[in-house]
Amino acid sequence: MLLLQYFLKLIEKVKFTVAHTDSSARAGILETDHGVIETPIFMPVGTQGTVKAVEQRELEEIGAQIILGNTYHLYLRPGIEVLQKMGGLHQFMNWKKPILTDSGGYQVFSLTDLRKISQDGVTFKSHLDGSSHFFSPKKVVEIQRVIGSDIMMVLDECPPFPCEKEYAVESNKLTVKWAKLCKEAVKDSEPLYGHHQALFAIVQGSVFKEIREQSAKALVDEDFEGYAIGGLAVGEPAETMYAMTEFTTQFLPVTKPRYLMGVGTPENLLESIERGIDMFDCVMPTRNGRNGMIFTRNGRMNIRNAKWKMDDSPIDDGFESYTNKNFSRGYLRHLFQVDEILGLQLASIHNLAFYLWLMREARKQIVADNFLHWERETLGQLAVNI
Amino acid sequence: MLLLQYFLKLIEKVKFTVAHTDSSARAGILETDHGVIETPIFMPVGTQGTVKAVEQRELEEIGAQIILGNTYHLYLRPGIEVLQKMGGLHQFMNWKKPILTDSGGYQVFSLTDLRKISQDGVTFKSHLDGSSHFFSPKKVVEIQRVIGSDIMMVLDECPPFPCEKEYAVESNKLTVKWAKLCKEAVKDSEPLYGHHQALFAIVQGSVFKEIREQSAKALVDEDFEGYAIGGLAVGEPAETMYAMTEFTTQFLPVTKPRYLMGVGTPENLLESIERGIDMFDCVMPTRNGRNGMIFTRNGRMNIRNAKWKMDDSPIDDGFESYTNKNFSRGYLRHLFQVDEILGLQLASIHNLAFYLWLMREARKQIVADNFLHWERETLGQLAVNI
Repeated sequence: MLLLQYFLKLIEKVKFTVAHTDSSARAGILETDHGVIETPIFMPVGTQGTVKAVEQRELEEIGAQIILGNTYHLYLRPGIEVLQKMGGLHQFMNWKKPILTDSGGYQVFSLTDLRKISQDGVTFKSHLDGSSHFFSPKKVVEIQRVIGSDIMMVLDECPPFPCEKEYAVESNKLTVKWAKLCKEAVKDSEPLYGHHQALFAIVQGSVFKEIREQSAKALVDEDFEGYAIGGLAVGEPAETMYAMTEFTTQFLPVTKPRYLMGVGTPENLLESIERGIDMFDCVMPTRNGRNGMIFTRNGRMNIRNAKWKMDDSPIDDGFESYTNKNFSRGYLRHLFQVDEILGLQLASIHNLAFYLWLMREARKQIVADNFLHWERETLGQLAVNI
Repeated sequence: MLLLQYFLKLIEKVKFTVAHTDSSARAGILETDHGVIETPIFMPVGTQGTVKAVEQRELEEIGAQIILGNTYHLYLRPGIEVLQKMGGLHQFMNWKKPILTDSGGYQVFSLTDLRKISQDGVTFKSHLDGSSHFFSPKKVVEIQRVIGSDIMMVLDECPPFPCEKEYAVESNKLTVKWAKLCKEAVKDSEPLYGHHQALFAIVQGSVFKEIREQSAKALVDEDFEGYAIGGLAVGEPAETMYAMTEFTTQFLPVTKPRYLMGVGTPENLLESIERGIDMFDCVMPTRNGRNGMIFTRNGRMNIRNAKWKMDDSPIDDGFESYTNKNFSRGYLRHLFQVDEILGLQLASIHNLAFYLWLMREARKQIVADNFLHWERETLGQLAVNI
């Protein structure tokens, strides 16, 4: 019986199918034990076990198929003891669909003055209370086992931008080494809640093509269940980001999902889908929403602007979201003027609904072999400030 | 035609029926053009055109039958120009059920250093930008016409607690005078949006029985559509509040709705229903909710308390609210620990659901002639800190 389980585990994987391609753009299906994800997909960010200002039933309502959690934040609060007692993150936050967890590498490496990197891992001080902690490749897998995410990410080092080539070379060696150690840790451990947990690797290499190529090839040799492109959208020009994405995807297997981490604007998403990316996450729709920036099919608006004061029309006429169907620009502007929480809620719901709509629409256009044409038309509209 | 409208207006009123009494407690039905309100009722406070952290559809879901707006706040922001353009507050905030608006008197008189009272009204400086404004009885009716509330409140002066008897006498004279002027202003004006707007008077008199009696009698002589008891829950002991309420209601007509302004805890509500009150409003369920105080059928809990950290049970087992049906004490505690907006949302939804449930339950018990027995049992449970 144990032997059978062992073999079953060896073959058990998330199943990814590319249903259709339109030039380099892909319409895929990613099957997990918590449900099917149609790609390209945007993943709302729920760092601390909640997507800020949005209820779980509202995420379902707007068509969220998978959300993010963050290993670093969840490890600190509520902590793995609580998460284990609660039966993992799905049960803790009552979210029944898939969850992907960032390994926390990005957060830890952002603590520039509070962390120390060695070959074995990284020692860091909590941003909350200064307490000392150590993340190794094995440790982040263990934590993600307790969280129970459907997709776990390897511990990586994300170099800053700009960075010296020598630094990027050494950093990438560490990332590749740690990716292998994470994979071993996954093989040597079991899921705690009866569902499969995939492990995705992260291609690094800053803006250096040859390091990106080495990184991708070394990781692909290890046969991960999916591949992320990390270390972009960290301050480099958008054109560089697109170029690095396009360059990197050629070394990734067409049969595996590709995830561009931390990206981005609606325009960034379309440009990256064009270059073969399947998955995205970004705080932009919620964070910018809380600051009053609203995304619409006709461009973006600053809802605090006085010009919306007397405007009784919906934000985006005919668009399907609770915000848009029920409230006017003038009302939303008022809520932001008077600092009411409902403004944050309605802006976040609408922006996430918009991002998810954009991904569904992109998928339709890929399936209809019309992606590039539609993309060109759409990019022009999205960039407008209305 | 104008003459016919004039006579129709004279007879048009909100219809209030006392369906059942159980000692002094009343189960009533208040009919407005925006729907029927079953009393006793709690009215969630939506000062600035939103009940803080709760969506309009969620108010419907938890059984809110009428909500509050505030004339002072809405006059300042978004301002009457916006409200008129938007077709009134119902349409502005997309709330189809009844709205009651406080006249703003309480807010203006709280601006102790920023306002000056005369026989004609009160001059005050905005708490936002120091700009100067004048509220007269006629003016607050005009503003409430633009807001379009189903129940308008007269401009009153709410004396502080404690206050000298001489002050309370003079203050009450002004309140009665202004109430009459408000009534005239209502008679001399028309609703703007085609639905009837009732005017409720406010009995003042601080904690002095004879002034309360004079106030109530003078106002009842004017035949208002409903009567509020104001100037309580301003710092006096609860027993004093109950005594003043009980004393005052004897002078109010049994056929008109009675509204105890700004009250209070769940216990306050039951004690006041026992004394013949039909309507309540208070920021407590939402404000205390945002501070982590959760009301349950078994008592109140501070959800920030470390003892809930590992608790995977619902807040109030079997209670009907989105919060309670979907999330654990431990999850809610986590949301408050990490300052997530969802915590404010879930606490507010739950506490309002609890207040509205308490009113529905009280009504059932009145109709079953079991109110006092049920009240005694319930009061004991509600006061517990769990």
